[in-house]
Amino acid sequence: MVLYLIGLGLYDENDITLRGLEAIRRCKRVYLEAYTSILLCDKSKLEALYGKEVVVADREMVESRAEEILEGADKEDVAFCVVGDPFGATTHTDLQLRARQAGIPVRVVHNASVMNAVGACGLSLYRFGEAVSICFFTDSWRPDSFYDKIAANRKLGLHTLCLLDIKVKEPNLAALARGRTVYEPPRYMSINTAVQQLLEVEEARGGGAFGPETLAVGIARLQADDQQIVAGTLAQLQEVDFGAPLHCLVLAGDVHVTEGEMLAAYMLAGAEAALEGARKE
Amino acid sequence: MVLYLIGLGLYDENDITLRGLEAIRRCKRVYLEAYTSILLCDKSKLEALYGKEVVVADREMVESRAEEILEGADKEDVAFCVVGDPFGATTHTDLQLRARQAGIPVRVVHNASVMNAVGACGLSLYRFGEAVSICFFTDSWRPDSFYDKIAANRKLGLHTLCLLDIKVKEPNLAALARGRTVYEPPRYMSINTAVQQLLEVEEARGGGAFGPETLAVGIARLQADDQQIVAGTLAQLQEVDFGAPLHCLVLAGDVHVTEGEMLAAYMLAGAEAALEGARKE
Repeated sequence: MVLYLIGLGLYDENDITLRGLEAIRRCKRVYLEAYTSILLCDKSKLEALYGKEVVVADREMVESRAEEILEGADKEDVAFCVVGDPFGATTHTDLQLRARQAGIPVRVVHNASVMNAVGACGLSLYRFGEAVSICFFTDSWRPDSFYDKIAANRKLGLHTLCLLDIKVKEPNLAALARGRTVYEPPRYMSINTAVQQLLEVEEARGGGAFGPETLAVGIARLQADDQQIVAGTLAQLQEVDFGAPLHCLVLAGDVHVTEGEMLAAYMLAGAEAALEGARKE
Repeated sequence: MVLYLIGLGLYDENDITLRGLEAIRRCKRVYLEAYTSILLCDKSKLEALYGKEVVVADREMVESRAEEILEGADKEDVAFCVVGDPFGATTHTDLQLRARQAGIPVRVVHNASVMNAVGACGLSLYRFGEAVSICFFTDSWRPDSFYDKIAANRKLGLHTLCLLDIKVKEPNLAALARGRTVYEPPRYMSINTAVQQLLEVEEARGGGAFGPETLAVGIARLQADDQQIVAGTLAQLQEVDFGAPLHCLVLAGDVHVTEGEMLAAYMLAGAEAALEGARKE
């Protein structure tokens, strides 16, 4: 039998493919990975559609108790469902490797992820360089490896997709020190926070990779009916209320003619100079 | 009313999402873009699933007669279906711009495209640089702008997705010169041809961006039951029979530990040195 890795797409229960739904309906057990991304619908909606129970798999389960998920998958089909595409997070690669080691065949059902759907922002998917992740800064942990990658992309005239941090089921450290496990409420990084951190790092590094006047596009709730796309300078986007998660951010590289025409519909007043500066024939 | 741009996914009629299918069933007219990519199923399968006629839109129609597609879309819903994701080809951006100019709202239904599903090859999606296109060379037309992009990616240790040319409904030039329009049979570039052209360009340029011993991964028929993934040197992949289209090719940059473990399952004997050379902690 088979372990299915099934992409659920971007927004809610209706973004699954017919192939994915058919596979799930054949499966004995169904897991939902819910810590590298989230769907904006309740688990009960998935269960109603699938006609079976869905077990939420948190990070601890996937990383430390993968054998529970794989248990019996040599005798009956098991589905591991992932928001977006199954190859959007390295965790799922681990699960695939473990299945392979256990001699369990793996089949993948692909779906949209932010890695390709970001084309909706009007910038061409073929002109993106390496994507970067931006993590929530704390007083003591301020990883800024994204900076060199953005600098390299912009030097080549390429756009950069910034994936924003998600903290789900994080233990409260004060409680943990007292021997109790209490989970913090989930946190999803906003575009505003991301811009603030980006500008902080640029100020500290001073490499001139980008700045408050750099052209960027903020995207919230891709594929939702109330999806929001706004283009402007980083300084402008820092002030925009993008509403509910999930958010992501694109730093523009060189902007070609058709890209400029596409962006026009999303552009804030006052960003004309930034767009002109980025234009390239 | 609305113009829907609907991604059909990678392989056959079952790769559409529930959201996409529901939208199509509401539409008065349904077009299928069939020249930047293809589904590996007959149009009749789509028509049976959708419960309505599907009009194949060739390049000439989309680029020169877009008003036919948009006709009446202000009064009734129209679907323009695209293999993969709607933002996988710039043509669809044009259609979106025209709709916008005509005051017709556009909604997008995303789906998997090779741009994200390529993660199936075992190399991390987050470590890909700019994607490149490889066109069929002719005696007089040998565009090699991909070379500088691959060189830039490899210098940064990044992988490169090579998208391979598709020629559908190309007029026969000899017949055209005699005033008749006769279409050539469709051609889909194989991984073998792509490797040959890559190595030809490297030989001509001599920049050392890659060579016959460079590690690469060939992927055929992503998402199909008989999907094929083979990793090896370019010289090795040139000899592999990957079968029916569609094909794509990935040139590896630096290969990290988990990536190496994932590749192991697809690796040809004799490529060990190439993998070792690409390894990076």
